[in-house]
Amino acid sequence: MDYVYGPGRNHLFVPGPVNIPEPVIRAMNRNNEDYRSPAVPALTKTLLEDVKKIFKTTSGTPFLIPTTVTFLIGQFSLLWIDQQQRLKFDVDVVESEWGQGANLDILASKLSSDRSHTIKAICIVHNETATGVTNNLATVRKLLDQFNHPALLLVDGVSSICAIDFRMDEWGIDVALTGSQKALSLPTGMGIVCASPKALEASKTAKSVRVFFDWNDYLKFYKIGTYWPYTPSIQLLYGLRAALDLIFEEGLDNVIARHNRLGRATRLAVEAWGLKNCTQKEEWFSDTVTAVVVPAYIDSAEIVRRAWKRYNLSLGLGLNKVAGKVFRIGHLGNLNELQLLGCLSGVEMILKDVGYPVKLGSGVAAAAAYFQNTIPLIPSRI
Amino acid sequence: MDYVYGPGRNHLFVPGPVNIPEPVIRAMNRNNEDYRSPAVPALTKTLLEDVKKIFKTTSGTPFLIPTTVTFLIGQFSLLWIDQQQRLKFDVDVVESEWGQGANLDILASKLSSDRSHTIKAICIVHNETATGVTNNLATVRKLLDQFNHPALLLVDGVSSICAIDFRMDEWGIDVALTGSQKALSLPTGMGIVCASPKALEASKTAKSVRVFFDWNDYLKFYKIGTYWPYTPSIQLLYGLRAALDLIFEEGLDNVIARHNRLGRATRLAVEAWGLKNCTQKEEWFSDTVTAVVVPAYIDSAEIVRRAWKRYNLSLGLGLNKVAGKVFRIGHLGNLNELQLLGCLSGVEMILKDVGYPVKLGSGVAAAAAYFQNTIPLIPSRI
Amino acid sequence: MDYVYGPGRNHLFVPGPVNIPEPVIRAMNRNNEDYRSPAVPALTKTLLEDVKKIFKTTSGTPFLIPTTVTFLIGQFSLLWIDQQQRLKFDVDVVESEWGQGANLDILASKLSSDRSHTIKAICIVHNETATGVTNNLATVRKLLDQFNHPALLLVDGVSSICAIDFRMDEWGIDVALTGSQKALSLPTGMGIVCASPKALEASKTAKSVRVFFDWNDYLKFYKIGTYWPYTPSIQLLYGLRAALDLIFEEGLDNVIARHNRLGRATRLAVEAWGLKNCTQKEEWFSDTVTAVVVPAYIDSAEIVRRAWKRYNLSLGLGLNKVAGKVFRIGHLGNLNELQLLGCLSGVEMILKDVGYPVKLGSGVAAAAAYFQNTIPLIPSRI
Amino acid sequence: MDYVYGPGRNHLFVPGPVNIPEPVIRAMNRNNEDYRSPAVPALTKTLLEDVKKIFKTTSGTPFLIPTTVTFLIGQFSLLWIDQQQRLKFDVDVVESEWGQGANLDILASKLSSDRSHTIKAICIVHNETATGVTNNLATVRKLLDQFNHPALLLVDGVSSICAIDFRMDEWGIDVALTGSQKALSLPTGMGIVCASPKALEASKTAKSVRVFFDWNDYLKFYKIGTYWPYTPSIQLLYGLRAALDLIFEEGLDNVIARHNRLGRATRLAVEAWGLKNCTQKEEWFSDTVTAVVVPAYIDSAEIVRRAWKRYNLSLGLGLNKVAGKVFRIGHLGNLNELQLLGCLSGVEMILKDVGYPVKLGSGVAAAAAYFQNTIPLIPSRI
Repeated sequence: MDYVYGPGRNHLFVPGPVNIPEPVIRAMNRNNEDYRSPAVPALTKTLLEDVKKIFKTTSGTPFLIPTTVTFLIGQFSLLWIDQQQRLKFDVDVVESEWGQGANLDILASKLSSDRSHTIKAICIVHNETATGVTNNLATVRKLLDQFNHPALLLVDGVSSICAIDFRMDEWGIDVALTGSQKALSLPTGMGIVCASPKALEASKTAKSVRVFFDWNDYLKFYKIGTYWPYTPSIQLLYGLRAALDLIFEEGLDNVIARHNRLGRATRLAVEAWGLKNCTQKEEWFSDTVTAVVVPAYIDSAEIVRRAWKRYNLSLGLGLNKVAGKVFRIGHLGNLNELQLLGCLSGVEMILKDVGYPVKLGSGVAAAAAYFQNTIPLIPSRI
Repeated sequence: MDYVYGPGRNHLFVPGPVNIPEPVIRAMNRNNEDYRSPAVPALTKTLLEDVKKIFKTTSGTPFLIPTTVTFLIGQFSLLWIDQQQRLKFDVDVVESEWGQGANLDILASKLSSDRSHTIKAICIVHNETATGVTNNLATVRKLLDQFNHPALLLVDGVSSICAIDFRMDEWGIDVALTGSQKALSLPTGMGIVCASPKALEASKTAKSVRVFFDWNDYLKFYKIGTYWPYTPSIQLLYGLRAALDLIFEEGLDNVIARHNRLGRATRLAVEAWGLKNCTQKEEWFSDTVTAVVVPAYIDSAEIVRRAWKRYNLSLGLGLNKVAGKVFRIGHLGNLNELQLLGCLSGVEMILKDVGYPVKLGSGVAAAAAYFQNTIPLIPSRI
Repeated sequence: MDYVYGPGRNHLFVPGPVNIPEPVIRAMNRNNEDYRSPAVPALTKTLLEDVKKIFKTTSGTPFLIPTTVTFLIGQFSLLWIDQQQRLKFDVDVVESEWGQGANLDILASKLSSDRSHTIKAICIVHNETATGVTNNLATVRKLLDQFNHPALLLVDGVSSICAIDFRMDEWGIDVALTGSQKALSLPTGMGIVCASPKALEASKTAKSVRVFFDWNDYLKFYKIGTYWPYTPSIQLLYGLRAALDLIFEEGLDNVIARHNRLGRATRLAVEAWGLKNCTQKEEWFSDTVTAVVVPAYIDSAEIVRRAWKRYNLSLGLGLNKVAGKVFRIGHLGNLNELQLLGCLSGVEMILKDVGYPVKLGSGVAAAAAYFQNTIPLIPSRI
Repeated sequence: MDYVYGPGRNHLFVPGPVNIPEPVIRAMNRNNEDYRSPAVPALTKTLLEDVKKIFKTTSGTPFLIPTTVTFLIGQFSLLWIDQQQRLKFDVDVVESEWGQGANLDILASKLSSDRSHTIKAICIVHNETATGVTNNLATVRKLLDQFNHPALLLVDGVSSICAIDFRMDEWGIDVALTGSQKALSLPTGMGIVCASPKALEASKTAKSVRVFFDWNDYLKFYKIGTYWPYTPSIQLLYGLRAALDLIFEEGLDNVIARHNRLGRATRLAVEAWGLKNCTQKEEWFSDTVTAVVVPAYIDSAEIVRRAWKRYNLSLGLGLNKVAGKVFRIGHLGNLNELQLLGCLSGVEMILKDVGYPVKLGSGVAAAAAYFQNTIPLIPSRI
């Protein structure tokens, strides 16, 4: 079954699915249970309460959806545009060059000219997994406030929430979502959506929102206290419980600080190697994934292949427009500094393998120098 | 976390989710993996090939969907009717009394009078989990053939496939589906759909089908050999592999025979207790779930509550129209005869607890007498 | 690997190793750790403190030995006699017929005549696993007190401690031991010994005791707070933690009461079948294992073989003098009433299989009638 | 329970217990079983057969002992000397300075002068875990042959077998032993001993050997085909099966080559840091553990403490004579190159933390340069 077994540990550095902590694997190591017994609603209640904390919301309503979020998302954008167009809605797609963040100037000008409020919703990805670009949601909110615009703010936080600073209430986000296999460090299979009171209100009337996901099914069961309109995965529920416990034990802000350390160290290594970050400006640098641009004479897919075949290292391919041109280092989820340094030294060897004149140890040294000054003591071990 | 822990094993006799075999729990006890590595397509390929065997099809195309099937189904019926009505389609719902199978006489008369073939599809549940009613799909096919009717035959096999005789090709079924947490004995989270060539063809033109699930996303990735349009659950893939291995080791026909033994023994026990099966005729008896009707002076929900609180036994509630009137014994999935006998003796004690004058040991004796004559030696231990 | 896989759950009713609770399996599902890190002593400290509770001692000193206790025991008796004889010690073996408890009259007369205290130690098995005989330790203590005799009281509590009432301090026991795979419901691999201050004192001078197990190695490391003179099994330590947590959650006295229910119900079933308990008097009946005598025309080993081959049921063989004459039902560890009833109905079918004219359901009915009047609600579910 | 949890993976670089591969953890994730069922002897038979391969013997007889080997060993040397002295045997201890291998010149001279063969056995540690010194067993055998000396050759292979070239038959070793938690990458709890026909023969007469471990108990059960004189750990048996499968899949020689790569790379890093290996000559360099000497102004224990508290890295302390003077990097078991590089970069940061003027990246670069030229493709992924 594990016919591709390699000795030692697989070094998983794709931007999701990420490493699952041992206590979470343990928590999910269980038989099925009757989800209609009183135990499951009692557990669910704590989960819904605690999930709000990772969205930094007190007024939002969370939903745990048994699905793959990347699927939702892929479908989401496509279906949404498609659906809305079929429903005679006008979708105004503001495209950016790959490697750039959302163009907020264009947004500002659109909002400023939309005096009749025909724009119903702003949809934005917090962290673009394909290029490692983080958008500034606080600024988006400021623009909406500045123009007193009532549009809903819908955010794809799949590769950001629980790893990059995210503040649902403070930034007035109306719908946000993430997936279990990203910063929560769970297996794939659960989408986590949080909706503001305004979004819930809007969903009662707006057909377009209701199409792709009907909150009312959930809300009905929330009200009667059994919580589930369908059979949930018992294993993922206990896994989520364990994952949240670990996050709270470390402290959400410490988790975010750790991701910042990992992101910075990775960028310092890339710089030391003399390579370029696909992200074009520092303000967009992502703390969960770094897309590294390779010289034209190298096929980045060969780097990914070799990593897996020779070093038991899993890196992310360049997708779509940047296929062959970038490889990606995912540095999110349950990961620490020494794991990243192992990965970076692997990347150095691979770069050399494929003919790039890197100085072995250069990236690791740059990252380690930064780490050595910033890694805190593990609180539980002081 | 397990704050409702009771000593010893939980006796799980709801009609899904069911007991997961230890080797399957073991197979899923793993970290995430990069699903874009060559390992995952290679594994998926064997799964798609082997999944066809449990549908008994060689020409069908299987799809593994990351979702909860009961949700799909619940949504399915509702959304489908709703959607089709919005699309100006005519949905002709043939309702049966609860406890009865599909009325095939009505179907026959409808088919016979539909000379212009306005009926596009027949949708039928193979085994109704709420009442323990199994419909005769072979007869449905015969009727379609008799009237030379081209309608698609769509089957919900959620609580039948892998436990009750099911023959996709032989019975000319066009779409069939099941869920991981039923007879496959996996956690919740994966829907397994199989489509006939005719259904695939129809999906290219029929809008109604395309709405709830777009096969084309999958087919595109099947063609390029990476198989997944989204991130699959690595754990469920390895779990499915282990579950199929166990089913094939036991032999699919032996699995079905075992379910027949479990079903018959349960019905003999119910009879011995002097209680009625909710299923009104023997031809509809289900081998995966038995809904037991309780006397009017007993609340069946109290039986279920007491089972859980006192005996660590999980039984199924009566749903909807039969709430309070029936309780359900699920006898599907990874289950053997002694487990069922333990359950039956538990039910006897509970019946006595709630005031029904059952003779302790009567149901167990009836079931055991049948088992003692029919249980085969375990092949691997002969 | 699991080439003897049978569908459903194995019904494990040997008198050890017993069923491991799911939370304990989960707790042991982990990688190795450095046992010299501060984490392991901290964990060990809680274990040593809590282990004393299951011995009901406050003054005793517990030792966790990385070995198989049945081995120790087997070796123990033999080696001890051998060793002591080599050391010119006099070993006075008081044998009882199989199925009888220790003859305390003989003990009384020996103690009464031993005015010069040449008897240095009384060695006694609390619960004899081979025949299901429980000795009365309180009476042994009374005899020692009555004759003011200073002999050490050494007790093999392998199949009693944590399942049958045991009171180290109250009964003045000097050395007691049990094994992980018995009532603690862990894997095999850890012996747990507890020594009274008197025993520790004696071990400083008595060569005979020091030979088989040297406490001083442990005590040295206890003093410096690292606890381990050798590498412990990290997995068993975490497993023991989880096992103790479950026992304390249920309540040690409730655990003992549950074993008493299981023992009584088993004996009622045996009686209903018209068979004899190998234990000759009620005062010696064991609550952890019942040895059932079969008629002369039946080979009890055939019952055990058939149980495994046809019913996925593991029963205990008759050993040594009662080989072929008895089979044993182990009812200890993490077990509840419905599990036992499943086992009993299995035994009924097997008895019929081998030609004994049992009335199916008779034993189950007798056991269930007793259970139905005595099973308490599960405290965590009230 | 995991109150010392740190984010990400613990980097376990003590010279045992070592990292357990995921498939092995999985294989041990199971309930107890009746060890008297036919399944356990069948499994044991394959284990005994396969264990011989890792000793490279065809004529030896292996024993799986339920104990902790380091305990045995610690006790072994001490008890042995003590016991033999008590039995009036003459023990001639040839001590070497710490950091040096066994002095084979002294051995040669002793053997040459022992014409009456009063020397009954040569006891030697293959790889000294405390200092990282590997002795040359082939030379020891040559000396014995050269002087035609019949002494038994007894080898402690605890930290060598399965990681460093070991050839029981070719080198005429009579007794060799290892422990589960070392290169086999299992939990602690199983000692594996292999005895040559000559050793078995000797054990029939020699009292001194019989004292610490009686093979006859085992051989009796080997003969009747049930294999176990006591209750084995079912979990460790299945774990051993999985561990051996992984070793054979990788290829024993590849496993040894991998350890050689890891050892060499570590030594290159130590050299690059300007530090000394505790092992004084290259011929004694160990491929499973490297003891690094720190400058006098640094307390090596502080390095180990800091590794754990800040970097989630577990290093080995200096023991006994070299306490405070060396720290140890264990590089054995289920480990790959990138894991080691992560560890080495961690050590660099710690060295800087404690005031040693290391150039960050220097050791990693030296190791990586060696690796980049030597790491083979993973065979299963070519």
